[in-house]
Amino acid sequence: MRKLCGVLILVCCYAAIHAQQNLGQAKTEIHSPIIQSGHRVTLSIKAPNAKLVQVKGDWLAQNEAANLTKDADGVWTYSSEQLPSDLYTYQYIVDGVSQIDPVNPYAVRDVGSLYSLFLIGDGKGDLYKPQAVAHGTVAYKWYSSPTLGISRRLTIYTPPGYEASNKTYPTLYLLHGMGGDETAWPTLGRSIEILDNLIAARKVQPMVVVMPNGNVSQAAAPGVSEKGFESISFKLPHTMDGVFESSFRDIQRFVESHYQVGKTKADRAIAGLSMGGFHSLYIAANYPNTFDYIGLFSPAITPPFGDSSSIYQKIDQKLKTQLQNGFKLYWKIGRAHV
Amino acid sequence: MRKLCGVLILVCCYAAIHAQQNLGQAKTEIHSPIIQSGHRVTLSIKAPNAKLVQVKGDWLAQNEAANLTKDADGVWTYSSEQLPSDLYTYQYIVDGVSQIDPVNPYAVRDVGSLYSLFLIGDGKGDLYKPQAVAHGTVAYKWYSSPTLGISRRLTIYTPPGYEASNKTYPTLYLLHGMGGDETAWPTLGRSIEILDNLIAARKVQPMVVVMPNGNVSQAAAPGVSEKGFESISFKLPHTMDGVFESSFRDIQRFVESHYQVGKTKADRAIAGLSMGGFHSLYIAANYPNTFDYIGLFSPAITPPFGDSSSIYQKIDQKLKTQLQNGFKLYWKIGRAHV
Repeated sequence: MRKLCGVLILVCCYAAIHAQQNLGQAKTEIHSPIIQSGHRVTLSIKAPNAKLVQVKGDWLAQNEAANLTKDADGVWTYSSEQLPSDLYTYQYIVDGVSQIDPVNPYAVRDVGSLYSLFLIGDGKGDLYKPQAVAHGTVAYKWYSSPTLGISRRLTIYTPPGYEASNKTYPTLYLLHGMGGDETAWPTLGRSIEILDNLIAARKVQPMVVVMPNGNVSQAAAPGVSEKGFESISFKLPHTMDGVFESSFRDIQRFVESHYQVGKTKADRAIAGLSMGGFHSLYIAANYPNTFDYIGLFSPAITPPFGDSSSIYQKIDQKLKTQLQNGFKLYWKIGRAHV
Repeated sequence: MRKLCGVLILVCCYAAIHAQQNLGQAKTEIHSPIIQSGHRVTLSIKAPNAKLVQVKGDWLAQNEAANLTKDADGVWTYSSEQLPSDLYTYQYIVDGVSQIDPVNPYAVRDVGSLYSLFLIGDGKGDLYKPQAVAHGTVAYKWYSSPTLGISRRLTIYTPPGYEASNKTYPTLYLLHGMGGDETAWPTLGRSIEILDNLIAARKVQPMVVVMPNGNVSQAAAPGVSEKGFESISFKLPHTMDGVFESSFRDIQRFVESHYQVGKTKADRAIAGLSMGGFHSLYIAANYPNTFDYIGLFSPAITPPFGDSSSIYQKIDQKLKTQLQNGFKLYWKIGRAHV
């Protein structure tokens, strides 16, 4: 022990050091993206050998790609017009091959691809931005699903003050679209920042938000389950076959037995995007008097999938019953493209 | 309401749909990486116009880049030799420009750059892989640091069974290296998978693991604090100036008042990589009788930084006192490069 102590003191005498870990520093003079005044973005990529460099992004039309311009150093640049305040994703296409911005460390996965990110503030985009407000907690939790016979992972947001409070909170079950998983809302959907900001602005009341994985062929998001770094495709099994909806009570039971949440219809909301809107519709209709608030965001409303699941059968009758039972809000906006 | 119900039933009659969300599907026939039998990896990238495509990766020497070979379709390929079971990061260099593998959705950020990932199993790498075992919970939590006058974020792992148990758990404070943040251990360091696997194998006892942010110029990891998508560099202010060590009790107080953890020296361990080893050394030496277990992994042991902080003063005396007070384990392995 004395020897160890001596060694420690000795090594303290060494001069400047470099850490043994991978320093991983980008050795480049290129900065991209740069948010300019006037809500414009400038994107740059060094590709001296390329013949054509383009960018695709949320601010352009669906199939549009804008050309970048090359300078004498082989740096290609693009400057946007004035953009509405929002969060934007983009990819370059270098001689036909898509890639993210190599000098932008902020990227998000959508289904099986990564996209680079930037944010234009001073407007709606500020909702998606971390602000100087109290922050809730994000946790990735595994729960047992007896219906499916496996453990599955969900994301759960508890609002600022939750731990110190004795009160019960309302719960929102927030469901992702096809190709997503329990990480889709907190990453692509910026749900954590939005909740922190809306709660701080007193535009919504503090609530617990549960973001489960709606694809029951996955125990958890790609890379997190025992499948390891599996390949990811958009057409996934077990997404709209009634099995997720049938196992919904497992999630509700887990949440209501582990969290300080209300257990009446008035305490529960369910909402979802695209496939998540489809799931929300059927879950709300199949579990009578469970939800007082139902939100369908661009829902993927398809015909029932044959007779494969009783979840989808007699939907008109179930919706009529839901209407008779009553609810406080049934909000549908947009519709998935047909 | 009746009208809404009618509309819902009506739209149920639509035929096949496409979700409105960005589908984000990689339109490519290239698959990369492919883990071959015999612990080899094959990497591929389509770059028909490129003159030279190379790969840099953990399995190669520090400054080595291996050449890929181009086929008639403009697809460049590399196959490795047999590799030891491990987790590997890599980047391509396409005509001198670094980029991640555009068809590999699994990437990790190290300081300011993204790296693509693959894993070779059947050995040590299995420790870094999600297995069919019980999973603990990962939570990202904000705590108040009165010493610094701000809220900061930390990552906390609670082991399987934690919620259902009344017992107290030991705590490991696990500190990252320079350029890292509270996400470094759970992402780059695979700490969650390692803990789940070691606990399941009964090689470690269930414990709470606290992974704070050791750079006090950050409230939270880049992109998560109110600085938004800030640029990230390796040379960061407030990393080894004594301020993090001085504010350590704020973290300990938060953890011990919010979690079921023991509050004696025997219940506490502190360990860290590189700069985190440096922090661990000084925290353990400056807070007598706080830790029975101290781990320095390739610690960055530098001379004290002038007289800027009393944390670094009289370190030989503090270490002698620590030795006299006693501890169960003081484990030092490797050393940051001088």
